[in-house]
Amino acid sequence: MTQTHISESQIPNPNELEKAEEEEYDYFDYFYDEPGSEPGTLNIEPDAQPSRIVLIDYDADHAVRKVDVIPKALTPYLGTNTISWMDVQGLGSETILKQVGEIFKLHPLLLEDIVNVPQRPKVEDYNEQLMMIVQMVRSTENDEGFESEQVSFVLGRKYLLTFQEEEIEDCFDIVRERIKGNQGKVRQGGPDYLMYLLLDSIIDGYFPVLEAYGDRIEDLEDELVIKPKTSNLEEIYTVRRELLALRRAIWPLRNVTNILVRGESDLISADVQIYFRDCYDHVIQLLDIVETYRELASSLMDVYLSSMSNKMNEVMQVLTVMSTIFIPLTFLAGLYGMNFKYMPELEGKWSYFVLLGVMLLIAGGLSYFFWRRGWFEPFYSLKKD
Amino acid sequence: MTQTHISESQIPNPNELEKAEEEEYDYFDYFYDEPGSEPGTLNIEPDAQPSRIVLIDYDADHAVRKVDVIPKALTPYLGTNTISWMDVQGLGSETILKQVGEIFKLHPLLLEDIVNVPQRPKVEDYNEQLMMIVQMVRSTENDEGFESEQVSFVLGRKYLLTFQEEEIEDCFDIVRERIKGNQGKVRQGGPDYLMYLLLDSIIDGYFPVLEAYGDRIEDLEDELVIKPKTSNLEEIYTVRRELLALRRAIWPLRNVTNILVRGESDLISADVQIYFRDCYDHVIQLLDIVETYRELASSLMDVYLSSMSNKMNEVMQVLTVMSTIFIPLTFLAGLYGMNFKYMPELEGKWSYFVLLGVMLLIAGGLSYFFWRRGWFEPFYSLKKD
Amino acid sequence: MTQTHISESQIPNPNELEKAEEEEYDYFDYFYDEPGSEPGTLNIEPDAQPSRIVLIDYDADHAVRKVDVIPKALTPYLGTNTISWMDVQGLGSETILKQVGEIFKLHPLLLEDIVNVPQRPKVEDYNEQLMMIVQMVRSTENDEGFESEQVSFVLGRKYLLTFQEEEIEDCFDIVRERIKGNQGKVRQGGPDYLMYLLLDSIIDGYFPVLEAYGDRIEDLEDELVIKPKTSNLEEIYTVRRELLALRRAIWPLRNVTNILVRGESDLISADVQIYFRDCYDHVIQLLDIVETYRELASSLMDVYLSSMSNKMNEVMQVLTVMSTIFIPLTFLAGLYGMNFKYMPELEGKWSYFVLLGVMLLIAGGLSYFFWRRGWFEPFYSLKKD
Amino acid sequence: MTQTHISESQIPNPNELEKAEEEEYDYFDYFYDEPGSEPGTLNIEPDAQPSRIVLIDYDADHAVRKVDVIPKALTPYLGTNTISWMDVQGLGSETILKQVGEIFKLHPLLLEDIVNVPQRPKVEDYNEQLMMIVQMVRSTENDEGFESEQVSFVLGRKYLLTFQEEEIEDCFDIVRERIKGNQGKVRQGGPDYLMYLLLDSIIDGYFPVLEAYGDRIEDLEDELVIKPKTSNLEEIYTVRRELLALRRAIWPLRNVTNILVRGESDLISADVQIYFRDCYDHVIQLLDIVETYRELASSLMDVYLSSMSNKMNEVMQVLTVMSTIFIPLTFLAGLYGMNFKYMPELEGKWSYFVLLGVMLLIAGGLSYFFWRRGWFEPFYSLKKD
Amino acid sequence: MTQTHISESQIPNPNELEKAEEEEYDYFDYFYDEPGSEPGTLNIEPDAQPSRIVLIDYDADHAVRKVDVIPKALTPYLGTNTISWMDVQGLGSETILKQVGEIFKLHPLLLEDIVNVPQRPKVEDYNEQLMMIVQMVRSTENDEGFESEQVSFVLGRKYLLTFQEEEIEDCFDIVRERIKGNQGKVRQGGPDYLMYLLLDSIIDGYFPVLEAYGDRIEDLEDELVIKPKTSNLEEIYTVRRELLALRRAIWPLRNVTNILVRGESDLISADVQIYFRDCYDHVIQLLDIVETYRELASSLMDVYLSSMSNKMNEVMQVLTVMSTIFIPLTFLAGLYGMNFKYMPELEGKWSYFVLLGVMLLIAGGLSYFFWRRGWFEPFYSLKKD
Repeated sequence: MTQTHISESQIPNPNELEKAEEEEYDYFDYFYDEPGSEPGTLNIEPDAQPSRIVLIDYDADHAVRKVDVIPKALTPYLGTNTISWMDVQGLGSETILKQVGEIFKLHPLLLEDIVNVPQRPKVEDYNEQLMMIVQMVRSTENDEGFESEQVSFVLGRKYLLTFQEEEIEDCFDIVRERIKGNQGKVRQGGPDYLMYLLLDSIIDGYFPVLEAYGDRIEDLEDELVIKPKTSNLEEIYTVRRELLALRRAIWPLRNVTNILVRGESDLISADVQIYFRDCYDHVIQLLDIVETYRELASSLMDVYLSSMSNKMNEVMQVLTVMSTIFIPLTFLAGLYGMNFKYMPELEGKWSYFVLLGVMLLIAGGLSYFFWRRGWFEPFYSLKKD
Repeated sequence: MTQTHISESQIPNPNELEKAEEEEYDYFDYFYDEPGSEPGTLNIEPDAQPSRIVLIDYDADHAVRKVDVIPKALTPYLGTNTISWMDVQGLGSETILKQVGEIFKLHPLLLEDIVNVPQRPKVEDYNEQLMMIVQMVRSTENDEGFESEQVSFVLGRKYLLTFQEEEIEDCFDIVRERIKGNQGKVRQGGPDYLMYLLLDSIIDGYFPVLEAYGDRIEDLEDELVIKPKTSNLEEIYTVRRELLALRRAIWPLRNVTNILVRGESDLISADVQIYFRDCYDHVIQLLDIVETYRELASSLMDVYLSSMSNKMNEVMQVLTVMSTIFIPLTFLAGLYGMNFKYMPELEGKWSYFVLLGVMLLIAGGLSYFFWRRGWFEPFYSLKKD
Repeated sequence: MTQTHISESQIPNPNELEKAEEEEYDYFDYFYDEPGSEPGTLNIEPDAQPSRIVLIDYDADHAVRKVDVIPKALTPYLGTNTISWMDVQGLGSETILKQVGEIFKLHPLLLEDIVNVPQRPKVEDYNEQLMMIVQMVRSTENDEGFESEQVSFVLGRKYLLTFQEEEIEDCFDIVRERIKGNQGKVRQGGPDYLMYLLLDSIIDGYFPVLEAYGDRIEDLEDELVIKPKTSNLEEIYTVRRELLALRRAIWPLRNVTNILVRGESDLISADVQIYFRDCYDHVIQLLDIVETYRELASSLMDVYLSSMSNKMNEVMQVLTVMSTIFIPLTFLAGLYGMNFKYMPELEGKWSYFVLLGVMLLIAGGLSYFFWRRGWFEPFYSLKKD
Repeated sequence: MTQTHISESQIPNPNELEKAEEEEYDYFDYFYDEPGSEPGTLNIEPDAQPSRIVLIDYDADHAVRKVDVIPKALTPYLGTNTISWMDVQGLGSETILKQVGEIFKLHPLLLEDIVNVPQRPKVEDYNEQLMMIVQMVRSTENDEGFESEQVSFVLGRKYLLTFQEEEIEDCFDIVRERIKGNQGKVRQGGPDYLMYLLLDSIIDGYFPVLEAYGDRIEDLEDELVIKPKTSNLEEIYTVRRELLALRRAIWPLRNVTNILVRGESDLISADVQIYFRDCYDHVIQLLDIVETYRELASSLMDVYLSSMSNKMNEVMQVLTVMSTIFIPLTFLAGLYGMNFKYMPELEGKWSYFVLLGVMLLIAGGLSYFFWRRGWFEPFYSLKKD
Repeated sequence: MTQTHISESQIPNPNELEKAEEEEYDYFDYFYDEPGSEPGTLNIEPDAQPSRIVLIDYDADHAVRKVDVIPKALTPYLGTNTISWMDVQGLGSETILKQVGEIFKLHPLLLEDIVNVPQRPKVEDYNEQLMMIVQMVRSTENDEGFESEQVSFVLGRKYLLTFQEEEIEDCFDIVRERIKGNQGKVRQGGPDYLMYLLLDSIIDGYFPVLEAYGDRIEDLEDELVIKPKTSNLEEIYTVRRELLALRRAIWPLRNVTNILVRGESDLISADVQIYFRDCYDHVIQLLDIVETYRELASSLMDVYLSSMSNKMNEVMQVLTVMSTIFIPLTFLAGLYGMNFKYMPELEGKWSYFVLLGVMLLIAGGLSYFFWRRGWFEPFYSLKKD
C-alpha cells in the first residue's frame, strides 16, 4: 500500500497527522532513482512488507495451492504443461526478489520497475515474456481519498508471475476462489485469460472509487449554493488534486489495454484478445468519467466564488439599508440637539411632534425605495435558513 | 428509462425529491461490474421491465407483425429470405435474454453489454454479426433535463435484432408504421437499411433535446443581465453538467457512424453506406451544437459573476453617497451640541442660520461631486425596474 | 436569408423585437428532420421565396442569359459543349426543385441537404457530380450581427448548378457581369473555374464581416477601461456568441477547400486546383482571425470584471476616507455634548478652542495617512472624466 | 512598413493619435480582395513606396551591385552562371512589378500574394520556382509594440528574387556587406544558401522583439503586486493582443521551415538543408517563448484581479476597524447627552471619569480583537510604501 | 550555470538584488544570434569559465584519467579500440573549443549550438556522429528555484565527447567513480552505454527539483486557506513561471529519448536501446508530474481569490453587525438629546429607564437576527487563529 489518506474528522494524534500530511501528496508520485545511481538497483522501502510467494498450479482437471513457497521450489513448475500462477506478495525481501528474478530470467530494469514502486502503468514485450505494470486502487474506509497498490505481471508461455505490494484481502481472492471451485471458464483458459481476469478486476475497482468522487462533487455543489464555507474551498481543491492523480493512473491504462487488444505478442491468444477489448472499453469509460468529474470539480470553484459574492451582496444590503435609513434621521436629531441661543424651531409647542412626523416620512420613503429594489430580501430570507 | 429529472418547481413530496436527487447525477453513469465478478454476468436491475419480443417479418410484398413472441419461435425466421426485425423490449427477464443469446449465438460479452446498461456507444464486428450500442434521448415532459434509453442492435445477414430498455411509444413507431403501410423504400431495403432508419431517428432525436438547452441558455442570459439570482447559479451548473452528459453520449456516436460509413463490414451494402454518411453529418452537427452550447454555458458563469459585481457596486454607491453627504453635517451638528461654557458662535443671533447655510453648501457640493461621477445612477435606475 | 439581427438602438415596436429575439440564436442552428421522418423529405419553409431559375450559357465566343427558365427547358443544355450555369434562386417551390432534381439525377439525400437549410458546409463526390454546400455571409445594414445564406453547388462535366436561398443582389452579380463583358479569364475556363470564382467571392465576403467584429472588440475595450456599463456585458456575450457561429461556418470550409485542393475528383482540372489553393489560404487566414478575435473577446470579460473591481475600489475609498476622518471627530463632539454635572473641561475658557485644535490635528493626521496611501485619488480623478 | 504603434506617453497631436489608433489593430490583419474581384488583381496601396530594384550579381570571384535597375535589364542575368540577387524594394509601382512578373514568368496568384500585403507566411513550389512569403518584425523605436514588413522570396535555379515593402536599413545590409567583402561562405554558396542567410536573419529578428515583451511582462508583474493601476489593465490587454499577433506570424513559419528542411524541392541542395534545420530549431524556440509569454500574460490578469481584491480588503479593514471601535463609544456619548430629567448617573461626581474609563476599556478590547485578527496591518503597511 | 534564483529572504545588498532580478526571467531563455550574423559564430559569454578537458580512457581491463589535456593530445585516442570519454568543462576558451571542433570534425552549426547556450534539447544525426543537447537542472541551495546547465554530447564510434558549462561537482562524478572502481557494467559497455548512464543521471536529477515544487504548492495551499497574504500571490506567479520553464526543458526531452529508443542511428546498439526505453519512461513520468503541478498551481490562484473573498466577507460582517446594532440606538440617544422645549417624554420619572429597556430590546432583537444568519462567526473564529 503506497498511500494512506486520513480525513480531518478522525485524526487520532499529531504524530499520525504529520505522517498523513507528509503522505497526502503522494498519490502516484513516481519513484525515482538517486541521480547517478546504478541502473537496476532495487530500492527496498524500509516499511515494505516481507515477500512471500503463493503458488497456484492448475489445469482443467486439478488445482493446487501452496503458500510461502521458496523461490527455488518454483523451478519445477516452469517446465510443466499446467498453468502456474506465482503471486509474490510484499516487496520487502531483496533476496527472494532477486532469486525470483534469476529463476525467471527477468531483465534487471524489469525487476527494478517491479520493486521501485510506484511506476507509470505500462506494457513491455520481452519476446518470451510480457511485462505489465498497473496501479490497483480502492476506497479508504472513511470514503475520503483512495489507496493504491502497484501490481506487476510477468506473463510467460505457461505461467503468470504477479507482484503485489501487500498481502491483503482483495479482489484477487474472488479469482482464487473461482480457480479453486472451477467456476466459470478460468480453468479452461491459459495464463493470458488469467491475466485478463485479474486486470479486469483491477479496472472494475476504479469505478466505485470514481463514483465516490461523483457523490462528493454532488454534495459539495448542494452545500455551496446554500451555505458556502471555507472548508468547502479546501475540499474542492482536494477533490481536484485527487482526480488529477486518478487521471494520471488511468490515462496510461488506455495505452496498456490498447496494446493488449492489438495483440502484437503471441503470448496472448486471439480468443483472449476479444476479452481485452472489453477491458479497453472500460478504461475509455473510466476516462470519460474522470474527465467529466474534473470539469465539474473545476466549475465548482466558479460556483463557490459566485456564492461568496452572493453572500457579500446580502451583507452589504443589510448594512446599506440600515445605515441609509437612519443616517438622515440621526442628523436631524443632532441638528436640534445644538445649543444655539436663537433657534426658533425649539420654542414651538408642536415642533417636536412635527419633527417626529418628518422623520417617519423620510424613513418610510427610503424603506419604500429599498423595498422596490428588493434590498429587503436578505432580511426576509433569514427565516428560510 | 434510465433517468428522471424533476424540476424544482413541481416537486410533489420529499420522498420523490429524494429519489430525484439520487438519480440526478446518473446521466450515462456507465454500468460497471462488481470487481472480480465473472465476465459475461448479466445484471438484471430490480426495476427493469419484463422482456417481451415483437417480431416484424417483411419483404417487398408482405409484412407480418407478432407480439409477445417466445424466443424459440424466432428460430424459423433465421433461415428465411425475408427480413426479420426482432425487437426485445425490456431487459428484466434473464431467461428470455439468455435464450435469445443462445438462438442468435451472441458472444457472452456482447450480451453482457446489451443488458448491463448504460454502456458507451460502440460498434463491434463479430464477422457474421455487427453489434451497435447507442443511447436514445428524449426531453422530459417538463422540458428540464432529458431521459435516455440504451438501444442495442445486432445486425445479421437477414435479420435485425434490437434491444430496448422500455416498451414505450417512441420514434420507432413511425418506422413500424412505414413498414406496415409500405411507405418509402423501407420494404425494398435490407436489414442494414432498417438499421439506418432506426439510427437516423435516434440521432434526429438529439436535436430537439439540444435545442431546449439553447433556449434555456438564452433565457438564463436575459435573466442574468437584468436581475441575477442565486437560483441562476444552480441552473447554470445544471445546464453545464447535462451538456457534459450529452457530449459524452454524442462523441462516441461520431466514431460509431464513421465506422459504418467506412463500411468495413460486408453486412452493410454500398447503397446504404451513403445513407450512413448522412448520419455521420448529423452527428458532426450535433457535436458542433453541443460544443457551442458548452462554451456559451461556461461564459454564462462569467456573466453571472460580472452581474453580481455590478449589483454590489450599486449597493455600495448608495451607501457611500448617503453616508458621505451626511457625515460632515452630523459632525457639525454634534459640534454645536457641545456644552462648553465659552463657545462664542452659540451666542450669535444668526449663527444657527449661517450654519444651516454652510450645511446646505456642503451637501450641495458633495452631491455635485457624486452626480458628476455618476454615482446617483442607482437612485434613478430604481424606477426602471 | 436565414437571420436578421436587430440592434437595440433601432427597435421600432415590441412585436418586431420579439421576432428579432426569437431569431437571435438562429445563427447556423442546423436544420434537423423530425425524428423518424422519411429520409429525403424536402421541408419547404413557409417563408421561403418561390424558386426561379436563371440560366447563363457561355463559351469563349458567346454568352446567353435567360431568366425564369422552367426546369424542362434546361435539358437541352446538358448535352451541349458550352458551359451552362443554372442558378436556382429561392427554395420555396417544391415542384420546381423536384423537377430539377430529376433532370440532373440528384440523389434524394443531396436534394434534401440543398433544401433543408442550413446545413454544415461540405463537399461530396457523386462520381459524375461534385456537390458542395457553403454558407455565404454579409454584414447587416446596421453593422451589428450578420446575415447568412446557404449556397449549394452541383458541378457537372459541362454545367454548374447553384442553389441560393434568395434572389438578392450579391457578389455573384460581379461574376455575371464579368461573363457578360468577357472580362478576365472566366469565359476561357470551364465550370470548375466558374465554381472557383463564386467560392472565392463567398470566402472573401467573410473578411469584412469579421473585420466589423474586430472594430466592435476594439470599441468595447476602450469603453470598458474608461467607463464599464452593464450593457457592455451583454455586448461582450453577443460578440462571443456570434464569433462562435462564424467559427462554426468557417471551420468546415477548411475541410471543403482542402478536398478541392487535393483534387480527388476529375471534374476539377489541375489548372483550377492551383486557384483553389488560394481559397484554402484565405480560409486559413479567416480561421486565424476568428480565433484571435475569440481570444480577445474572451479576455474582454476579464477586463470588464477588473474594471468593475476598480470602480468598486474607488467607491469604497471615498466612503472609507470620509467616514474614517469624521468618526473620531464626531465622537469627540458627542463626548462634550454629554450632560454630566462634573465635567471639568467644560468650564475652561479655552477648552472649546483647544478641542477644535485637537480635531484639526486628528483630521490632518488621518488625511495625511490617506494621502500617502493614495486613497484621495478617486477624489481628484473626478475632474478628469 | 505595415504598422506604427505609438505609445501613450509621446503622442504629439490628435491627428496622429487618430491615425495610430486606426492602425493599432492592424497587426497582420490579412489583406483581402474585394468580394467578387478578379483573381490576380494587384492592389497598390496609396501610401506604398515606389518600387526600385537593386541587383547584386556574384560568384566566388566577383561581386557587382547595381541600383535602380529597370526590369528589362534583369533579363541578361537569368541565363548566366553567376548568382543574381534581385531585390525589389517598395511595392508601389504597378508597371515595374508587372514587368518583373513577366520576365520571371510569375503566376498571377503568386504576384498577387507578393503585392497585396500582408499575407500569411507560406512556401509554394512552382517546379522551376520556389516561392516563400514571411513577415519580418522589428521593435519600434520607443520599444512599445513592433513593426512588421512582408518579405517575399522567389528562388530560381541561379537567381533569388526578393520583394520588400520598404527601402529601409535592415539586417539584409549585413548580408550585402558580407557578399561585398566576401566574408564567410556566402560567395561559395548558391541562391539557396543566400535565401537561408536572409531567412535566418529574419527569424533571428523575432528574438529581440519577443524579449521586449518578456521585459514588459516582468515589469507589469512587479507593478501589479505592489500597486495595481487601471492603466495596467489596458497594458496587459495590449500585451496579450500583440503576442497573439506575433504568434499568428510565427506559427506558419514552423510549417514554412519544415517544408524547406524536408527538402522536397530540388532547388535546395542537401548541404543547405542542414542549415534550414537550424532555422526550424529557432522557429520552435520562438514558439516556445511566445507560448510561455502568452501564458504568463494571461496569468497576469489573475494577478491583477487578486491584487485589486487585496487592495479592497485593506480599504475595508481600515473602515471596519475605525467604525467598529468608535461606534459604541459614540453611542455612549450620545446616551449621556440626553436631556431626561431623571438620569441618576449624571449627578455622580465621578460619573464622567468612570464613563471615560469604560470607553477606554471598550476601545482597548476591540483594538485587541482587531490586532489579534491582523486587521491593523493596513495601518502599519502604509509606512512601507 | 545559467541562472541563479535568489529568494527574498536572503538578499544581501541592492546590487546583487538587481542582478538577481535581471536573471530571474532567464530560465531557458534561448540564446539567439544577432540578426544577420554569420552562421556558425561562437559567442563566448564574458562570464563563461575557461575550458579544460578531462579525458577518461577505459576498457574492461583498464581505466586512465587525465586532467587538463590539450586538444591535440586527444587525437591519438580517436584511433584506439578503447572507449574514450572527453569531457570539456567550461565554454570560455574559444581556441580550445575550435581546436576540439577541428579534431572531431564537428559541423560549424553543431559547435555553435554547443557554445551558444542555452539551446532547446535535441538530437541530431550526422551519420558518423550523434549529437545530443540536454539541460541539466539542480535545486539551488535555498530550495527556491533551480539552476540549469547545458550538457552537449557528441557520440562517436569509440568515443563520447561531452561539453558542460561548469566545472562543478555533479552527478557525473558518481559515474566517474563507477568507471574508476569498475562497478556495475559501465566498463563492459560502449560509449553508447556511457551516454545512457549520463543521460539517465541528468533525467533523474529533474525529479527532486520537481518534488520541491510539489512541496511549495502544498505549503502554499495550506497558507492560502488559513491566512492568504499578498506575498502568496507573488509566489504562486513565480511557481507557475518556473514550472513553465521546466516544462519547456522536459517536453523536448521526450522527443530526444524517443529518437534514441527508436534507434535509428547504428551508433546505438540494440542492448542499450532497451536502457534508453527506461529513460523515455522517466521523461513521461516527469511530464505527468509537471503537468499535474501546473494544474495545481493554476488552481491555487482560484483558491487565493476565493480566500480573499472569504476574508472580505468576514470584515464586512463585523462592520455590518456592529453598525447595524448601534445605528438605531445612537439615533434614539440623539433624539432625546434634542433641545425642544416641549418634549413630554423628557419629564417622566422612568422615561430614561424605559428607553434603556427599549434599547436593550432592539439590540437583543438585531443580535438574534445576526446570530441566526451566522454573521457572528467572524467574532468567534478569532480565538481559533
